[in-house]
Amino acid sequence: MSEKFSPPYYAVIFTNERTENTEGYAETADHMVALAAQQPGYLGFESAGDGKSTISISYWRDLDSIKAWKEVSDHATAQAMGRKKWYKSYTTRIALVERDYSFEAEQV
Amino acid sequence: MSEKFSPPYYAVIFTNERTENTEGYAETADHMVALAAQQPGYLGFESAGDGKSTISISYWRDLDSIKAWKEVSDHATAQAMGRKKWYKSYTTRIALVERDYSFEAEQV
Repeated sequence: MSEKFSPPYYAVIFTNERTENTEGYAETADHMVALAAQQPGYLGFESAGDGKSTISISYWRDLDSIKAWKEVSDHATAQAMGRKKWYKSYTTRIALVERDYSFEAEQV
Repeated sequence: MSEKFSPPYYAVIFTNERTENTEGYAETADHMVALAAQQPGYLGFESAGDGKSTISISYWRDLDSIKAWKEVSDHATAQAMGRKKWYKSYTTRIALVERDYSFEAEQV
Protein backbone atom coordinates (compact mmCIF):
# COMPACT_ATOMS: atom_id res chain seq x y z
CA MET A 1 0.00 0.00 0.00
CA SER A 2 0.87 3.67 -0.09
CA GLU A 3 2.74 3.40 -3.35
CA LYS A 4 4.14 6.78 -4.28
CA PHE A 5 4.81 8.13 -7.76
CA SER A 6 4.84 11.62 -9.19
CA PRO A 7 1.65 12.86 -10.85
CA PRO A 8 0.45 12.93 -13.48
CA TYR A 9 0.00 9.18 -13.91
CA TYR A 10 -2.98 6.88 -14.50
CA ALA A 11 -4.99 4.67 -12.15
CA VAL A 12 -7.14 1.76 -13.30
CA ILE A 13 -9.71 1.35 -10.53
CA PHE A 14 -11.38 -2.07 -10.51
CA THR A 15 -14.22 -2.44 -7.98
CA ASN A 16 -16.12 -5.70 -7.80
CA GLU A 17 -18.55 -7.89 -5.93
CA ARG A 18 -17.69 -11.56 -5.94
CA THR A 19 -19.76 -14.67 -6.41
CA GLU A 20 -19.50 -17.68 -4.06
CA ASN A 21 -17.28 -19.38 -6.65
CA THR A 22 -13.63 -19.03 -5.65
CA GLU A 23 -12.26 -21.82 -7.87
CA GLY A 24 -9.00 -20.65 -9.41
CA TYR A 25 -9.57 -17.06 -8.37
CA ALA A 26 -6.55 -16.50 -6.12
CA GLU A 27 -4.13 -18.18 -8.52
CA THR A 28 -5.40 -16.16 -11.47
CA ALA A 29 -5.38 -12.91 -9.50
CA ASP A 30 -1.79 -13.52 -8.38
CA HIS A 31 -0.77 -14.39 -11.93
CA MET A 32 -2.41 -11.24 -13.32
CA VAL A 33 -0.59 -9.04 -10.77
CA ALA A 34 2.74 -10.67 -11.63
CA LEU A 35 2.04 -10.30 -15.35
CA ALA A 36 1.04 -6.64 -15.00
CA ALA A 37 4.28 -5.90 -13.15
CA GLN A 38 6.21 -7.00 -16.24
CA GLN A 39 4.43 -4.59 -18.56
CA PRO A 40 6.04 -1.39 -19.85
CA GLY A 41 4.63 1.61 -17.99
CA TYR A 42 3.53 -0.37 -14.92
CA LEU A 43 4.00 1.68 -11.73
CA GLY A 44 2.32 -0.28 -8.96
CA PHE A 45 -0.66 -2.18 -7.59
CA GLU A 46 -2.85 -2.00 -4.49
CA SER A 47 -5.81 -4.10 -3.44
CA ALA A 48 -8.10 -4.24 -0.42
CA GLY A 49 -11.10 -6.41 0.31
CA ASP A 50 -12.72 -9.00 2.49
CA GLY A 51 -13.42 -11.76 -0.06
CA LYS A 52 -16.88 -10.43 -0.90
CA SER A 53 -16.04 -7.08 -2.40
CA THR A 54 -12.65 -5.86 -3.52
CA ILE A 55 -11.13 -2.66 -4.81
CA SER A 56 -7.96 -3.18 -6.84
CA ILE A 57 -6.02 -0.31 -8.36
CA SER A 58 -3.15 -0.58 -10.79
CA TYR A 59 -1.05 2.48 -11.62
CA TRP A 60 0.37 3.23 -15.06
CA ARG A 61 2.53 5.80 -16.72
CA ASP A 62 0.10 6.59 -19.54
CA LEU A 63 -2.93 5.45 -21.53
CA ASP A 64 -0.82 3.53 -24.02
CA SER A 65 0.53 1.32 -21.22
CA ILE A 66 -3.03 0.60 -20.07
CA LYS A 67 -4.16 -0.22 -23.57
CA ALA A 68 -1.26 -2.63 -24.08
CA TRP A 69 -1.99 -4.32 -20.74
CA LYS A 70 -5.66 -4.70 -21.61
CA GLU A 71 -4.67 -6.57 -24.75
CA VAL A 72 -2.35 -8.88 -22.80
CA SER A 73 -4.95 -9.62 -20.17
CA ASP A 74 -7.57 -10.29 -22.83
CA HIS A 75 -5.29 -12.92 -24.27
CA ALA A 76 -4.95 -14.49 -20.87
CA THR A 77 -8.75 -14.87 -20.88
CA ALA A 78 -8.81 -13.82 -17.24
CA GLN A 79 -11.44 -11.19 -17.90
CA ALA A 80 -13.77 -13.65 -19.60
CA MET A 81 -13.29 -16.10 -16.74
CA GLY A 82 -14.12 -13.32 -14.32
CA ARG A 83 -17.38 -12.57 -16.04
CA LYS A 84 -18.36 -16.23 -16.10
CA LYS A 85 -17.42 -17.35 -12.64
CA TRP A 86 -16.07 -14.94 -10.08
CA TYR A 87 -17.91 -11.65 -10.30
CA LYS A 88 -21.49 -10.63 -9.64
CA SER A 89 -20.64 -7.18 -10.88
CA TYR A 90 -17.67 -4.94 -11.47
CA THR A 91 -16.78 -1.48 -12.65
CA THR A 92 -13.50 -0.43 -14.23
CA ARG A 93 -12.51 3.22 -14.22
CA ILE A 94 -9.62 4.85 -16.06
CA ALA A 95 -8.52 7.92 -14.11
CA LEU A 96 -5.76 10.49 -14.44
CA VAL A 97 -4.15 11.10 -11.04
CA GLU A 98 -3.51 14.84 -10.89
CA ARG A 99 -2.30 15.16 -7.29
CA ASP A 100 -1.33 12.91 -4.42
CA TYR A 101 -0.06 13.25 -0.87
CA SER A 102 0.98 10.75 1.77
CA PHE A 103 1.29 10.45 5.52
CA GLU A 104 3.54 8.08 7.48
CA ALA A 105 3.36 7.78 11.25
CA GLU A 106 6.71 8.36 12.94
CA GLN A 107 8.47 5.18 13.93
CA VAL A 108 8.40 4.80 17.72
CA MET B 1 -20.30 -0.96 -4.99
CA SER B 2 -20.37 -0.46 -8.73
CA GLU B 3 -21.64 3.07 -8.54
CA LYS B 4 -22.18 4.41 -12.01
CA PHE B 5 -21.92 8.00 -13.19
CA SER B 6 -21.01 9.60 -16.47
CA PRO B 7 -17.38 10.65 -16.98
CA PRO B 8 -15.75 12.99 -16.60
CA TYR B 9 -15.96 13.16 -12.81
CA TYR B 10 -13.44 13.04 -9.97
CA ALA B 11 -12.34 10.24 -7.65
CA VAL B 12 -10.62 10.81 -4.31
CA ILE B 13 -8.72 7.58 -3.68
CA PHE B 14 -7.79 7.07 -0.02
CA THR B 15 -5.58 4.04 0.65
CA ASN B 16 -4.42 3.36 4.20
CA GLU B 17 -2.82 0.97 6.63
CA ARG B 18 -4.37 0.97 10.07
CA THR B 19 -2.87 0.90 13.54
CA GLU B 20 -4.13 -1.48 16.24
CA ASN B 21 -6.12 1.40 17.73
CA THR B 22 -9.77 1.13 16.66
CA GLU B 23 -11.21 3.46 19.33
CA GLY B 24 -13.87 5.63 17.72
CA TYR B 25 -12.80 4.66 14.21
CA ALA B 26 -16.02 3.05 12.93
CA GLU B 27 -18.24 5.81 14.32
CA THR B 28 -16.10 8.54 12.81
CA ALA B 29 -15.85 6.75 9.45
CA ASP B 30 -19.63 6.33 9.30
CA HIS B 31 -20.14 9.95 10.25
CA MET B 32 -17.69 11.14 7.57
CA VAL B 33 -19.48 9.09 4.88
CA ALA B 34 -22.86 10.51 5.94
CA LEU B 35 -21.45 14.03 6.02
CA ALA B 36 -19.83 13.66 2.59
CA ALA B 37 -23.14 12.53 1.12
CA GLN B 38 -24.66 15.87 2.11
CA GLN B 39 -22.05 17.91 0.27
CA PRO B 40 -22.75 19.64 -3.06
CA GLY B 41 -21.16 17.70 -5.89
CA TYR B 42 -21.03 14.38 -4.02
CA LEU B 43 -21.67 11.43 -6.38
CA GLY B 44 -20.93 8.29 -4.38
CA PHE B 45 -18.66 6.30 -2.09
CA GLU B 46 -17.08 2.85 -2.14
CA SER B 47 -14.82 1.13 0.37
CA ALA B 48 -13.19 -2.28 0.68
CA GLY B 49 -10.85 -3.67 3.30
CA ASP B 50 -10.18 -6.23 5.97
CA GLY B 51 -9.59 -3.98 9.00
CA LYS B 52 -5.84 -3.76 8.41
CA SER B 53 -5.73 -1.98 5.10
CA THR B 54 -8.55 -0.18 3.36
CA ILE B 55 -9.16 1.51 0.03
CA SER B 56 -11.95 4.09 0.14
CA ILE B 57 -13.00 6.09 -2.90
CA SER B 58 -15.39 9.02 -2.95
CA TYR B 59 -16.66 10.39 -6.26
CA TRP B 60 -17.27 14.07 -6.95
CA ARG B 61 -18.55 16.25 -9.73
CA ASP B 62 -15.54 18.57 -9.83
CA LEU B 63 -12.47 19.86 -7.98
CA ASP B 64 -14.44 22.64 -6.28
CA SER B 65 -16.67 20.04 -4.60
CA ILE B 66 -13.59 18.18 -3.35
CA LYS B 67 -12.03 21.36 -2.03
CA ALA B 68 -15.21 22.30 -0.16
CA TRP B 69 -15.42 18.80 1.35
CA LYS B 70 -11.80 18.94 2.46
CA GLU B 71 -12.55 22.12 4.39
CA VAL B 72 -15.60 20.56 6.06
CA SER B 73 -13.72 17.43 7.07
CA ASP B 74 -10.84 19.50 8.40
CA HIS B 75 -13.32 21.25 10.66
CA ALA B 76 -14.58 17.91 11.87
CA THR B 77 -10.97 17.14 12.95
CA ALA B 78 -11.37 13.62 11.61
CA GLN B 79 -8.23 13.90 9.54
CA ALA B 80 -6.14 15.01 12.51
CA MET B 81 -7.59 12.20 14.61
CA GLY B 82 -6.68 9.77 11.86
CA ARG B 83 -3.08 10.88 11.82
CA LYS B 84 -2.81 10.62 15.60
CA LYS B 85 -4.56 7.34 16.23
CA TRP B 86 -5.84 5.21 13.42
CA TYR B 87 -3.39 5.21 10.54
CA LYS B 88 0.13 3.92 10.15
CA SER B 89 0.21 5.45 6.72
CA TYR B 90 -2.11 6.70 4.04
CA THR B 91 -2.08 8.17 0.57
CA THR B 92 -4.75 10.40 -0.93
CA ARG B 93 -4.99 10.75 -4.69
CA ILE B 94 -7.14 13.19 -6.66
CA ALA B 95 -7.95 11.63 -10.02
CA LEU B 96 -10.06 12.61 -13.01
CA VAL B 97 -12.11 9.63 -14.19
CA GLU B 98 -12.03 9.78 -17.97
CA ARG B 99 -13.79 6.51 -18.81
CA ASP B 100 -15.68 3.76 -17.01
CA TYR B 101 -17.49 0.56 -17.87
CA SER B 102 -19.45 -1.94 -15.82
CA PHE B 103 -20.51 -5.56 -15.89
CA GLU B 104 -23.50 -7.13 -14.11
CA ALA B 105 -24.07 -10.89 -14.08
CA GLU B 106 -27.47 -11.83 -15.45
CA GLN B 107 -29.99 -12.58 -12.72
CA VAL B 108 -30.73 -16.31 -12.61
